[in-house]
Amino acid sequence: MTPGPTPVAPETLLAMAEPIIHHRSPQFSAILAEVEEGLKFVFQTKNDVLILVASGTGAMEGAVTNFLSAGDKALVVRGGKFGERWGAICEAYGVKALALDVEWGKSIRPEVIETALKNEKGIKAVYIQAHETSTGAKYPVEAIGNIVHQYPETIFVVDAISALGVYDLKTDDWHVDIMVSGSQKALMLPPGLAFASVSDKAWGLQKVATLPRYYFDFAKERKSLAKNSGAYTSAVSLIVGLQQVLKQIKAMGLEAIFARNKRLSEATKAGVKALGLKLYAEESPSEALTAILAPAGINGQDVVKVMREKYGVTIAGGQDQAKGKIFRISHMGYVNEFDVIVALSALELGLKDLGYAIELGAGVKAAEEVFSQ
Amino acid sequence: MTPGPTPVAPETLLAMAEPIIHHRSPQFSAILAEVEEGLKFVFQTKNDVLILVASGTGAMEGAVTNFLSAGDKALVVRGGKFGERWGAICEAYGVKALALDVEWGKSIRPEVIETALKNEKGIKAVYIQAHETSTGAKYPVEAIGNIVHQYPETIFVVDAISALGVYDLKTDDWHVDIMVSGSQKALMLPPGLAFASVSDKAWGLQKVATLPRYYFDFAKERKSLAKNSGAYTSAVSLIVGLQQVLKQIKAMGLEAIFARNKRLSEATKAGVKALGLKLYAEESPSEALTAILAPAGINGQDVVKVMREKYGVTIAGGQDQAKGKIFRISHMGYVNEFDVIVALSALELGLKDLGYAIELGAGVKAAEEVFSQ
Repeated sequence: MTPGPTPVAPETLLAMAEPIIHHRSPQFSAILAEVEEGLKFVFQTKNDVLILVASGTGAMEGAVTNFLSAGDKALVVRGGKFGERWGAICEAYGVKALALDVEWGKSIRPEVIETALKNEKGIKAVYIQAHETSTGAKYPVEAIGNIVHQYPETIFVVDAISALGVYDLKTDDWHVDIMVSGSQKALMLPPGLAFASVSDKAWGLQKVATLPRYYFDFAKERKSLAKNSGAYTSAVSLIVGLQQVLKQIKAMGLEAIFARNKRLSEATKAGVKALGLKLYAEESPSEALTAILAPAGINGQDVVKVMREKYGVTIAGGQDQAKGKIFRISHMGYVNEFDVIVALSALELGLKDLGYAIELGAGVKAAEEVFSQ
Repeated sequence: MTPGPTPVAPETLLAMAEPIIHHRSPQFSAILAEVEEGLKFVFQTKNDVLILVASGTGAMEGAVTNFLSAGDKALVVRGGKFGERWGAICEAYGVKALALDVEWGKSIRPEVIETALKNEKGIKAVYIQAHETSTGAKYPVEAIGNIVHQYPETIFVVDAISALGVYDLKTDDWHVDIMVSGSQKALMLPPGLAFASVSDKAWGLQKVATLPRYYFDFAKERKSLAKNSGAYTSAVSLIVGLQQVLKQIKAMGLEAIFARNKRLSEATKAGVKALGLKLYAEESPSEALTAILAPAGINGQDVVKVMREKYGVTIAGGQDQAKGKIFRISHMGYVNEFDVIVALSALELGLKDLGYAIELGAGVKAAEEVFSQ
């Protein structure tokens, strides 16, 4: 129940356990063509979706190095560990990252982006998260997309690594030029694949971008993709798993999946609130995970530890400045109602062990009330 | 029977099909610690072996960007597609690649490296392959290592992506500062992991290297590895597979594995010679694969095609300038005597279909003679 790697369905695991096929064979090309169509469906885009062998951070790096040049200016929303990562990647490559710092746990108002773009000329890119996984706060992607769209020289880049496939993210309609994702979250696969959709506007910027790049060369990947192949050796077993997952997602439909995730999220949030706990990202919580403030006198890391060691339920702790202060329960991907019930039950038992005064069963009851509606 | 991805053993595939574990859990840390020890055994090194989520090319890029600065000079041996890749990575990052061009199919004499290092002061790194997978030619790693070792300011970097675990490569004894490898070759795993061992001499250079890097930041990976974790989300399922494979390799012993590969290589080479065919890399053939010149009037790609489509045996064609001119049969990793027999049999049948006059069974007979010794 962590925000990635998430559980993988047994049928996907077994599909990946089939004998390995060659990455330059017609058999693999056919699979890749099908996977590409499926990715476009999930990304809600007509653009190419590039497939990289990397963790999601690799695609984030490529979303900087392929589109900017040293000395370029970029807006970076920093409201947690992953916003900070956008800033760190920009800095590593000599891009001037103009940081819009957001208090951890809070969201960003679109007007802040609008003002920044108005006041500072020549910003080449705006880098945000769909939600900040380290805090659980969701960002207003659609509204920001509409703002950045008015600037023909500025691209809008969204890290949706743990958001894509959880809730609605309309890449094309919302003017997201580069949408980045990864395999190990709502796509219900092991880690190892990263994705990036790239708009025509972004390809225009790519033509004049001079930052150095080789492995994450998006133009080279695009060229290979047109021939249904990867620029380097594709992670064939993960692609075979992806084929399975995308079939299931298509069969279920995006709206049904989003509704399902919303329900699991609401039940989890209702459950923790019924235990007297507070959400870390109260004003704009994401449907992908629930970040919870550890109660006074209890360290969030101890909650994670007791749940894992005594009850066998793995949730995530806080990161960096939120370490010890929060703990996080994810409910995206291959997770159902009773996984939420089990997590809440283990949380109740664990909190009681740690000396927090709760009524056992209260969280589970509140979640069941959501499910029974 | 291609030089990667190679077949994966069923027990490894099934180990990877176990439920996913979290990359920051004590359970995963214990596995990673065991895997790191196993990698040191296979790499024959006391140095850290970094584990990256990437194709092998990602580790090659890191072997440039972590150790050099823009304008630095590097020697690059270019005797095929992968030597050219070293050159291209250097150029992409503004490193002056001094190319030692080798005719495709030939090896390089160590004296050439010695002379180049003597004549051109200030060379920071020498980049070679253990063998050039695109031609099947093996390079004299030990001899070159002894030469580069005499230059305290120059590191020796070897691409052993398709060589490690096939034949003897003594990282430490042969003074290889950075040995690069990948999961999908002799390590008998699906693609998705890249490795790089890094010597103290190389870490010294890293301290002053200023090329930009983020995802492939070796210092960050080293720091994470010391805590039995990866800098980003580890490819957990591949690491679990690697744990299995390394156990098998340790149990079998490196010498036995090298002897086995040698035997498979000798049988394959004897078989194709018995059919009147010539090796592409006659003077210094690698044990990992056999690159064969297509007979006059026959296109190498047609040999690949008929073997795959009519006989269900996948071998590799030539790449770039060798395309059509050669075909390549690999025999590394999870391959046994009868895989070689089947490949030779399919080759005989395919060549006959293509109008090449051969005596059916002659190649298989020659291979059997090697095996019966």
